[in-house]
Amino acid sequence: MWRLLFFSFTLAAAEPADTIVKLLTEQSEAWNRGDIPAFMRTYENSPDTAYVGAAGVTKGYQQVLVRYQKKYSSRQQMGTLRFTDLTVRPLTADVATVTGRFQLTRGKEAGGDASGWFTLILRKTAGGWKIVHDHTS
Amino acid sequence: MWRLLFFSFTLAAAEPADTIVKLLTEQSEAWNRGDIPAFMRTYENSPDTAYVGAAGVTKGYQQVLVRYQKKYSSRQQMGTLRFTDLTVRPLTADVATVTGRFQLTRGKEAGGDASGWFTLILRKTAGGWKIVHDHTS
Repeated sequence: MWRLLFFSFTLAAAEPADTIVKLLTEQSEAWNRGDIPAFMRTYENSPDTAYVGAAGVTKGYQQVLVRYQKKYSSRQQMGTLRFTDLTVRPLTADVATVTGRFQLTRGKEAGGDASGWFTLILRKTAGGWKIVHDHTS
Repeated sequence: MWRLLFFSFTLAAAEPADTIVKLLTEQSEAWNRGDIPAFMRTYENSPDTAYVGAAGVTKGYQQVLVRYQKKYSSRQQMGTLRFTDLTVRPLTADVATVTGRFQLTRGKEAGGDASGWFTLILRKTAGGWKIVHDHTS
């Protein structure tokens, strides 16, 4: 019985990190299929969802989607996305942060390679873990 | 009675934003007195406190403190810090994000002016609201 309880606890503790890493893997796979709407499904569909980049804050799910569509308007510009150095940190039972590195591989004519660091804040919603805030630099 | 309840609710809703803005104002005042240890008191003193900048992730309160002390080793390098465009977003009763812009004014010989955007994640602790994660770019 104690062993069973311990086992359940261990599973519960590992759960957010594993689920979130899997989510980000699926997200990058959507990007690499050239599917921005599927990539965006990892974000919470809310007017409060925010993206912070070099140009400042983009607020609203729809606005973040449009920003990606404008900035990466062709399959070539989207290139191949890879996330590395992922670290998930649960802050509460329903909120977690993820830090990591992105690497975009693409031809020179499409803007060339790009890389940087990001902080994501995810919240556990009725529809699963969703990104509510993204700061990429 | 209903009015009293509504009034209490309004006060409670405004509380985190006001408290956090006041905290960041005090934090920048500490910086502008050249007092990095006082500036750091706004961060949670935890090995999990994290700072993400151009060089990646610095993990640990002590490591973040040392990073500031090395990068800003003289009063001239610290310059004058100002936060603008502050937006506080409560995620739960105990977790909030803040986005904003920093502007550092300093002489050319000390590195010149600098500016950028940040995302802070704060958590309500026994010692008040504390920054648990800082992404500055």
